[in-house]
Amino acid sequence: MTDGNGFLNALRDIVGETHVLTTPADTEPYYVDWVGRTRGTALCVCLPASTQEVSAVVALCARDAVPVFPQGGNTSSCGGSVPLEEGRGILLSLRRMNRILSVEPENDAIVAEAGAILVEVKAAAEAADRLFPLSLSSEGSCAIGGNVSTNAGGTAALRYGTMRDLVLGLEVVLADGRIWDGLRILRKDNTGYDMKAMFVGSEGTLGIVTRVALKLFPLPRHRATAFVAVDTVAGAATLLGRCKAEFGPLLDAFELFSGSQLDIVCRHVEGNRRPIDSDHPWYVLMELQTRDGAKELSSRLEALIGEALEDGSAADAALAQSHAQAEALWRLRHSVSEANRRHGLNFTHDVAVPIGRIADFMQEADAAMASDFPEAEIFSVSHMGDGNVHYTAIFRPGAVKASGADARDLGARVTRKVHDIAVGLGGTFGAEHGIGQRYRASLQRYKSEVELDLFRAMKRALDPQGILNPGKVL
Amino acid sequence: MTDGNGFLNALRDIVGETHVLTTPADTEPYYVDWVGRTRGTALCVCLPASTQEVSAVVALCARDAVPVFPQGGNTSSCGGSVPLEEGRGILLSLRRMNRILSVEPENDAIVAEAGAILVEVKAAAEAADRLFPLSLSSEGSCAIGGNVSTNAGGTAALRYGTMRDLVLGLEVVLADGRIWDGLRILRKDNTGYDMKAMFVGSEGTLGIVTRVALKLFPLPRHRATAFVAVDTVAGAATLLGRCKAEFGPLLDAFELFSGSQLDIVCRHVEGNRRPIDSDHPWYVLMELQTRDGAKELSSRLEALIGEALEDGSAADAALAQSHAQAEALWRLRHSVSEANRRHGLNFTHDVAVPIGRIADFMQEADAAMASDFPEAEIFSVSHMGDGNVHYTAIFRPGAVKASGADARDLGARVTRKVHDIAVGLGGTFGAEHGIGQRYRASLQRYKSEVELDLFRAMKRALDPQGILNPGKVL
Repeated sequence: MTDGNGFLNALRDIVGETHVLTTPADTEPYYVDWVGRTRGTALCVCLPASTQEVSAVVALCARDAVPVFPQGGNTSSCGGSVPLEEGRGILLSLRRMNRILSVEPENDAIVAEAGAILVEVKAAAEAADRLFPLSLSSEGSCAIGGNVSTNAGGTAALRYGTMRDLVLGLEVVLADGRIWDGLRILRKDNTGYDMKAMFVGSEGTLGIVTRVALKLFPLPRHRATAFVAVDTVAGAATLLGRCKAEFGPLLDAFELFSGSQLDIVCRHVEGNRRPIDSDHPWYVLMELQTRDGAKELSSRLEALIGEALEDGSAADAALAQSHAQAEALWRLRHSVSEANRRHGLNFTHDVAVPIGRIADFMQEADAAMASDFPEAEIFSVSHMGDGNVHYTAIFRPGAVKASGADARDLGARVTRKVHDIAVGLGGTFGAEHGIGQRYRASLQRYKSEVELDLFRAMKRALDPQGILNPGKVL
Repeated sequence: MTDGNGFLNALRDIVGETHVLTTPADTEPYYVDWVGRTRGTALCVCLPASTQEVSAVVALCARDAVPVFPQGGNTSSCGGSVPLEEGRGILLSLRRMNRILSVEPENDAIVAEAGAILVEVKAAAEAADRLFPLSLSSEGSCAIGGNVSTNAGGTAALRYGTMRDLVLGLEVVLADGRIWDGLRILRKDNTGYDMKAMFVGSEGTLGIVTRVALKLFPLPRHRATAFVAVDTVAGAATLLGRCKAEFGPLLDAFELFSGSQLDIVCRHVEGNRRPIDSDHPWYVLMELQTRDGAKELSSRLEALIGEALEDGSAADAALAQSHAQAEALWRLRHSVSEANRRHGLNFTHDVAVPIGRIADFMQEADAAMASDFPEAEIFSVSHMGDGNVHYTAIFRPGAVKASGADARDLGARVTRKVHDIAVGLGGTFGAEHGIGQRYRASLQRYKSEVELDLFRAMKRALDPQGILNPGKVL
């Protein structure tokens, strides 16, 4: 058991006096999530500087059965990165372990500590004429270890896959404090069970990622970016199919906005403006990236969109004519969270369905919302190429009198409806954000007993005391 | 316990009289591997027709603690697909479960039973204008479930990854006979631990794959294939780097032959001929594939090779001018196993090192072989883009008097040397063939105690009785 100061002093011995934070002013940014929605508390915030220190800290916690809540950039959108309310346990921040350890262009690999910020990993790759492709709105603050632990997705997953596809190797501190050295940069390795795969996406509940080895790609030098209005989701699907057939692996992103989403993104976030003046129910932001042959690629994209306009699968279109114009289009995409927050009490979802059923999902979900929650306004932005829909219901100030527990209850009812529909269409209630605290109930609701048994077996096998990020996932 | 006929009769009740084989003539093809190297035996060969039958069979075996040796196309090259010699247990063949269940072009997905032959999966995809990219010499006989269970690699892994990267979902019969339905076709799904990742590459020791959902890609319509002579491995690495930078995701294959390997492939396998007359220490077979712009791609490849010839990084080259010429080049690659077997007593290895260290590996391994095994002739063919080297030592008839146990001992000594060098260079002793029976000793030798503990924890968690493919991997 923790005897208060004895335990904290033991932590201080490991990481140094100044790296154990206990005063509210110091701990506040670690205990509440970035949107201010989920708050927890802990005995302290502990900031180790090395894998060995993490190992010693976890061993100490294992000895005393003290929960460990690991945290990277604290950008979880489902309460995965903050401690529980009960206050047992320590918050283990990887923030000080933020070095890029090596960039190996000839092996197309980069190795970094878990606390390295995504944007810095990308910059280090770029300095070696390579691309690390993970692209998220939070890339300026999220940590690469958190990206691994949550199997982050983002806008370039269509071309490069999610974090799971980008990890070559990991170093992980296990629940008993031992260090698993799986930090390899090999492209093929079939020697036993793929343990790294078990840690990716496990949200710190099976082990604490301390170092990561990641795949790099040739750095594209050019891009062709377009914003296309379509009248139906089916039209967008047709366009997507043609883009995949025509451009194959050069298609980087294919993002679908509802007209309402574009509307509030331009209304609430300064500096945004509509790329297309005419009003349409849906818009697609698409991008191709290439290292060579930019001009030819742009004209092929123009031709494809021209055909779509002609045969009616597209309604209107704007092609970016400069880097600045492309950036302005992407700014629309990256303003979505902010616009939603400003618009009102918002409940966002992160569902996925098979690509061919996105139109069904939109139709069913819209109908259900209109019937059950007539006060809600509906918005969506989708990584359409991945079948991943961020479907949002927003209650304007005054539309409902909901705050605190009432708001939580309203959110739970909305979410249940949205999740039921996605799962009913062969989809999932969680595509890229993970489970955290927020979707634990959904996990229990939608997963089969067999699958939950498998999860519990994994948890028991790797964290028998249950000290790693308890109250998350399971 | 198995009471002989009682147990067999119970099996017959499940799968039908004619699908439990016991006579040597019937069971022989299942008990010995395709090269005739590894032989085992079992109580019977059991051929279920459905997942439900597999489930019932495994439940029966779990009840009686009877080992289950799952088998797909029986093409393992490390004794992974045949039973042990001791004869306890049943051979569970997935051969009858060979249907393609659905092809969904709009979702870029295909679903098949585990016993479907790889070449038939590829054909079904192609009929829908899609590509299933896994490419192996054994594709005419290997089963897709075996490809999943061994995380198969092959020549297109450079572009498309290994089987691990191609699996969307799995249905698996667990060690207690329960069925885990993880047969999803979603591109993103972050709801709990990624159980499919644990089954991929676990060689049937954690569960029995019964159905697979796989990713499809746009079907390329054109290819540009070249055979290039280089004087050093470093020259080949330079060429690889340039191809990756220039062609990025269009580079499908980059295979490195030692001059000696090309030599015996042409000498021992009828119909092969040297694409380049002049003699060089190394040759590269490379291929680009594209859906459009074939002509432009061919001329870009020609230009790149032209530059390499000019600056000396390439020594000679032949570009395929027709489909037939490209096929003839690939035939060289697919003749390697046969040529090696005909040349003499051969010990092949499946190591990988970081791409930047392939040259070091070749140099160190050649030196060690020359010093320790002067009678051996050395050959290699490498999936160079993956760092994966198939390094082979062959003892000509008469060079050593080794057969039976002596040959096995000689092989073990050669293998240990080769594996030591690969692992010493930050590599692995098993890149794409897996562990099976043959590399269990290497697994114990090279894996850390922590990693072996993790493996054992996984095995205990998912197969506590140890009835699934015992004697393999661990």
